[in-house]
Amino acid sequence: MGQDQSSVFDLAAVAAASNGGNNDPLLPPARFIGEPQKPSRMPYNKYAAYDKQVPFDYPERTWPGKRLQRAPRWCSVDLRDGNQALVNPMDSERKLRFWNLLVSMGFKEIEVGFPSASETDFDFIRMLIERELIPDDVTIVVLTQCREHLIHRTYEALRGAKRAIVHFYNSVSVLQREVVFKKNKEEIKKLATDAAALCKKLEGDAKGIDLYYEYSPESFTGTEPEYAVEVCNAVINVIKPTPERPMIINLPATVEMTTPNVFADEVEYVSTHLEDRDSVVLSLHPHNDEGMGVAATELGILAGADRIEGCLLGNGERTGNVDLVTLGLNMLTQGIDPQIDYSNVPEIRKTVEYCNQIKISERHPYAGNFVFTAFSGSHQDAIKKGLEARQVAADRAGADLDNFVWLVPYLPIDPKDIGRTYEAIIRVNSQSGKGGMAYLLKTNHNLDLPKRLQVEFDKIVQKFADDTKKEVKDEDIWRLFKDEYLPVEQSGMTAAGVVVGDTHDETLAPWGRLKLLKVSVSSGEDGSDTVLKAKLLDRGMNVGEDEPVEREVSGIGNGPIAAFLNAISNFGVEASVMDYVEHTMSVGTDAMAASYVECQVGEADNTQIVWGVGIDSSITTSALKSIISAINRSQRAR
Amino acid sequence: MGQDQSSVFDLAAVAAASNGGNNDPLLPPARFIGEPQKPSRMPYNKYAAYDKQVPFDYPERTWPGKRLQRAPRWCSVDLRDGNQALVNPMDSERKLRFWNLLVSMGFKEIEVGFPSASETDFDFIRMLIERELIPDDVTIVVLTQCREHLIHRTYEALRGAKRAIVHFYNSVSVLQREVVFKKNKEEIKKLATDAAALCKKLEGDAKGIDLYYEYSPESFTGTEPEYAVEVCNAVINVIKPTPERPMIINLPATVEMTTPNVFADEVEYVSTHLEDRDSVVLSLHPHNDEGMGVAATELGILAGADRIEGCLLGNGERTGNVDLVTLGLNMLTQGIDPQIDYSNVPEIRKTVEYCNQIKISERHPYAGNFVFTAFSGSHQDAIKKGLEARQVAADRAGADLDNFVWLVPYLPIDPKDIGRTYEAIIRVNSQSGKGGMAYLLKTNHNLDLPKRLQVEFDKIVQKFADDTKKEVKDEDIWRLFKDEYLPVEQSGMTAAGVVVGDTHDETLAPWGRLKLLKVSVSSGEDGSDTVLKAKLLDRGMNVGEDEPVEREVSGIGNGPIAAFLNAISNFGVEASVMDYVEHTMSVGTDAMAASYVECQVGEADNTQIVWGVGIDSSITTSALKSIISAINRSQRAR
Repeated sequence: MGQDQSSVFDLAAVAAASNGGNNDPLLPPARFIGEPQKPSRMPYNKYAAYDKQVPFDYPERTWPGKRLQRAPRWCSVDLRDGNQALVNPMDSERKLRFWNLLVSMGFKEIEVGFPSASETDFDFIRMLIERELIPDDVTIVVLTQCREHLIHRTYEALRGAKRAIVHFYNSVSVLQREVVFKKNKEEIKKLATDAAALCKKLEGDAKGIDLYYEYSPESFTGTEPEYAVEVCNAVINVIKPTPERPMIINLPATVEMTTPNVFADEVEYVSTHLEDRDSVVLSLHPHNDEGMGVAATELGILAGADRIEGCLLGNGERTGNVDLVTLGLNMLTQGIDPQIDYSNVPEIRKTVEYCNQIKISERHPYAGNFVFTAFSGSHQDAIKKGLEARQVAADRAGADLDNFVWLVPYLPIDPKDIGRTYEAIIRVNSQSGKGGMAYLLKTNHNLDLPKRLQVEFDKIVQKFADDTKKEVKDEDIWRLFKDEYLPVEQSGMTAAGVVVGDTHDETLAPWGRLKLLKVSVSSGEDGSDTVLKAKLLDRGMNVGEDEPVEREVSGIGNGPIAAFLNAISNFGVEASVMDYVEHTMSVGTDAMAASYVECQVGEADNTQIVWGVGIDSSITTSALKSIISAINRSQRAR
Repeated sequence: MGQDQSSVFDLAAVAAASNGGNNDPLLPPARFIGEPQKPSRMPYNKYAAYDKQVPFDYPERTWPGKRLQRAPRWCSVDLRDGNQALVNPMDSERKLRFWNLLVSMGFKEIEVGFPSASETDFDFIRMLIERELIPDDVTIVVLTQCREHLIHRTYEALRGAKRAIVHFYNSVSVLQREVVFKKNKEEIKKLATDAAALCKKLEGDAKGIDLYYEYSPESFTGTEPEYAVEVCNAVINVIKPTPERPMIINLPATVEMTTPNVFADEVEYVSTHLEDRDSVVLSLHPHNDEGMGVAATELGILAGADRIEGCLLGNGERTGNVDLVTLGLNMLTQGIDPQIDYSNVPEIRKTVEYCNQIKISERHPYAGNFVFTAFSGSHQDAIKKGLEARQVAADRAGADLDNFVWLVPYLPIDPKDIGRTYEAIIRVNSQSGKGGMAYLLKTNHNLDLPKRLQVEFDKIVQKFADDTKKEVKDEDIWRLFKDEYLPVEQSGMTAAGVVVGDTHDETLAPWGRLKLLKVSVSSGEDGSDTVLKAKLLDRGMNVGEDEPVEREVSGIGNGPIAAFLNAISNFGVEASVMDYVEHTMSVGTDAMAASYVECQVGEADNTQIVWGVGIDSSITTSALKSIISAINRSQRAR
C-alpha cells in the first residue's frame, strides 16, 4: 500500500470521536411531549457515519422523481450466494430441485456456482451441461475471483456449455484494499484488468461456448464511487463489449451500509459515468444488513439499474440477499408484469424452505403465514366492506371479479393471485371488533347479521375472547352463535339443515322453552287477515326439569308474524317486533332462509329487547323460528 | 358520498387496463444477455400503479441530499398495534413483562392499548395507573377511534394517570372514504374535528392528568397528501397546540403501497405544509407490506419526521410494524446514539418472542441467529484480516480495543456491542475457503497456521465438507487437524497439553512411526555447533503391527533443528527444512509453543513436501515434534 495514504482506521477514529455533537436529545428541532429521552450506554463513538467513510454527494440525481416502469432483468443467485450461506449447503438433489423451480418460474439467468472453489459446484455445473438440463433460453453464470488458477478452473467447468456468463470479481473497497489486499488503487485495478485480459485470452479454449462477461467491483458500497467507475471502465476497455454483445457491470451492496437514497445516488452516478453505457447491462447485487435491501434495489432501479441479482425469499450471507419474491410482487402491485411466475407462492416457499433448510418468518412479505391475516376489528370490517364494494363495482362494470381491479383496504394484493386464499384473512381475537365475527359468519355460514345484532352478539364473542385470552376460531364463533340463537336439541334433530351444518352439538346444553313443531298459515283475499295455527312444544321455564307439553295455538294478523304474535299472546307471552330482516342463504329453490328479528318481549315495566334468529327452508317457518328464538332468549336471560 | 365523484374502482380499472404498455420485455432500454424474459401469467392488469391511485409529485424535495443526524423520539406500540396482531394476544403477565422491558430500555412514550375496544386493554391500563407502575418520565398513549362513546370510555381508562396522550384517529384514504365510511371529504374531516372538540371538552373531567393529543389520518398512504394536510390542520386548529404544549400529528403508512422515495416526498410535503409546525411533533407509523418499512422510516426522518412509532423486532398486523431494533442499531452504525438501550439484543429477543409467541427469522437484522455468521471463505478471510488490522491500529493508537473505531469487512456492527459474540461468526461448510478454518484454529486453539500450511490442510477440510455435505464444525476441524498433524496416542498421553485440549481421541486411530521420548541439546560458545541427543520410539512402518523399538540418536548442527535432522539422517531418514515458523500460544512463562515446519522428506526422485506441526511447552521440543510430525505424515501418505 502506498505511504501517501493514512490508515482508514485513523480517519474513521477521528470521525467517530466527533459524533457526540449530534447526540444531545435537546438539540433543536427536538419536539417531544413529556420527558426527553436519555443518552443510552451504546458506544456510538465507535462508529463512523457512512458519509465520513465514503464522502459522496450527487446533487444531479434524477431518481427521486421517478417511478417503477418495468421489470428489470432478474438473475437468481440462490445456487451460489444463497447456497454458500447455509448451515448445510444443498446436496445435488436439492440443487437440482431448486434449479428446476427457477427454470419453471421463468428465470433466464441463473448463477450456478463458484466451480473453482467447490468441487460440489464444479460437479453440479458439469451435470447440468452433460445431462443437457439447461434450456436454450437460459444462461448460466459462474463466479470466480480475479485469480489466474481459479479462472482456468472456471473455464474447465464450462466445457461443452452452449452459453455462459463468466462473472469475475475483486474487492475494491477502501477498507479491503488496506486490510485484506494491502494494495493501492492502481494495483487493485490491475487485478481486475488482468483477470479481464485472461478471460479474453482463454476464449480460444472455450470454442463453441457463447461467452459473456460480468464484472463486480466487490464491496461497492464501501468504495469511492469515482474509483469504482474508474475500475469498471478499465475492465470495459479490456472486454470491449458492444450493444450486440454487452457485458454486465454488477454493483454489489456486499454490506448494506446506509440509507438507500445514498445507494441510489451512487448507482445513478455509476450509470451516468460508465463508458459505453449502451454496451453495459448495469446490475445490482444488494444485501440486507440494515433491513433496507428491497428499498435499495427499487431506488437503484429508478437510478438506472437494468438487472437485479438476488435470492428467493431473501436467503444469503448474514441477513440475506435481496428477496426476489418481494421485488417481483411489489412490481405486480404497481401494475408491472414481473416476468417471473409468482402465482404459486406457497409452492415456491415449500421448495425454498426444503432446499435451504431454513424457515421464513411468519411476517415475511407475501409469503409469511400471517401476512393475509387481519386481527384488528376495524381492519376486518374495512376488508369486508371493501370486498363487497369491489363485487358491486365489478357487477356494475360487467367485469369478471377475478380479473377486476384490486382495491381492498389493508390487502395490497389479491391473495388468490399468488396461490393463497382468503381463508386466513380474518381471524378473531380479544382485540377484534364485530367486523371479523360478522365476516366469518357471512363467509362460512352464509349468515348476514344486521348491524344491531352484530353489536349484541359481539359482546358474547368479546367476553369469550377476554376470558380465554386466545384467538377465537371460526368454530368457536359458530358454537357461541348456535348456543345463543339457535335451538339446541339433545337428539340428532337439527334446526338449520345442511346449509349451515348440524346444530346438534354434544358440548352445548339444550335450552329454550318453546319449540315450533308444526305451523299452517292461511291468507284470504288481498288485504284480508292471515290466520295461523301452530303446534308448539312447551318445555316450561326449567328445560329438562319441567314436563314438556304440546300446545296448539292460533292467531290472526296482517301477515304470519303478526298472526303468530297474536297466537302466542293468547298463550301468555307478550312480544312485539321492532326490526326484521330475512335473506336467502344460497341460490335456488331448495335454499334455506335466515331470519333475524329484534323483539321487545314482556309486559309493562318488565320488557327486554332481544334478537332472535331462525333458519328454515320455508321463509315463513324461518321467521316464526326467529321470534321463538328471541322469546326463548329473553326467558333464558331472566 | 357526493355524486360529483367517480368511484375509485372505475378510475383504477381504467388505469390498470392501460398497464400493458410498459410490460414488453423488449422495450428500450432493455439491456440483457441471451434470451429475453417472457411475460408471466401474473394478472398485472388488475393493479393500478400507486401514482394512478394517489397522483402526487413534490419536486421541491430536499430529503435526498440529507443524512441521518440524530435519533427521533421513539414510541413503542408493541402493547397495542403489536398485540392486536397476535394469534394469542398477551395476557397481563406477558403485557407487564413487555412493559418492564420497554421501560428498562429507555422508552419515554409507550402506547398501552385501545381501552375502549378491549376489556383486557382497559384493565391493563387501570393496573398500570393504580399500581403506580408508570415512572414519572414515561408517558402512556391510549388509542381511540373518533367516536363519542369510545372517547368517553378512553377517558375513563385514564382516571388517575399523571400524564397521558390521547391518540384519536380516523381513516381518511380515498378508498376507505368510499367503501367503508361512504362519506365525502368534508364529512370525514368533521369526524376528526368533532373528536378533537370532544377531547377538549372532556379535559374538564380529566383533572389532574397532564393531557396531550395525537391525531392520525389513518391510511395516510392511500390519501391525497393535500387532503391529509387539510384534515390535520383542521384538527390542529381545534386542539390549538403551542411549542410548550405540542400535539402529535402521526402519519400511518397503514399499508405500505409503493417505493419509499414517494413516502418521503409525502412526509416532506406534510412537514412543510402543517400549520403551527413548531407546535407539532410530526410522527410516522410505518408498516412493512412491501418489505421497505425500515427504509421508508429512515427516508421519512430525512424528510422531517420527529417521532417514530414501531414495534420491537417488527411485530404487527400482516408483515408487521417497522422494527425499532433495526432502526436504532442502524443509527448506531452511523455514530448516532439511538437513546434506547439495545446492548442486550439476545435478551430483548427472548422477551419479545416469549410475549408475542412468534419466532423471528434466522436472518433478521442484528437479532437473527445467522447474521453474524460468515460461511463464505473469502468473507471469513477478510473478517480475520480485518480484526487483526483493527487490533494493530488500536495498539498503534494506544486505544482500548473495545472502544476503538469499528471497521471490519462484512460486519457492520461489533457483535459485542449488542450482547452477541464472535463465536458464531465463522462457520465452515463446503463453500468456505481456508480463511474460516484458519480463523477457527486461531480463535479456538491459538494456532496461527502459515499460509501454505493453510492451503495444505484446507484440502483435507474441503474433502471432508464435500463428502459430508454438512457444515464443518469447529470440533470437526480440530479432529481433522489432530488426526493429520498431531501424534495420536492410544492411552491418555497428550501431545499438546491443556492449552489446546486433550488430543487423545477415541475416534482417531493411532498412527506415526516416530515419537520423541526425550531430548537434550547442548550448545557451546557463540558460533559453535549444537549437539543434540534424543531418544525416539520407533513404531515401524506399520504402526500397531511392528514391534516398537526405542532408539537413541545424536546429531550436530548450527542449531537444534539442524542437529536433529543430522541425527535422524544417521537413522536413515532424510529430511530438510524449507520453511519454519514458531509462535507462543499465550502470554506468560508457562505458555505452550506451536511450531510449523515445511519439510522435504525422502531422497533423490522420491521426495515429498509436507508440513508438520509440533506443540510443546519447550520451544525446542515443539520444533522437533513438528519435524517428526512431517516425517510421520510423509510415511503415512506413502
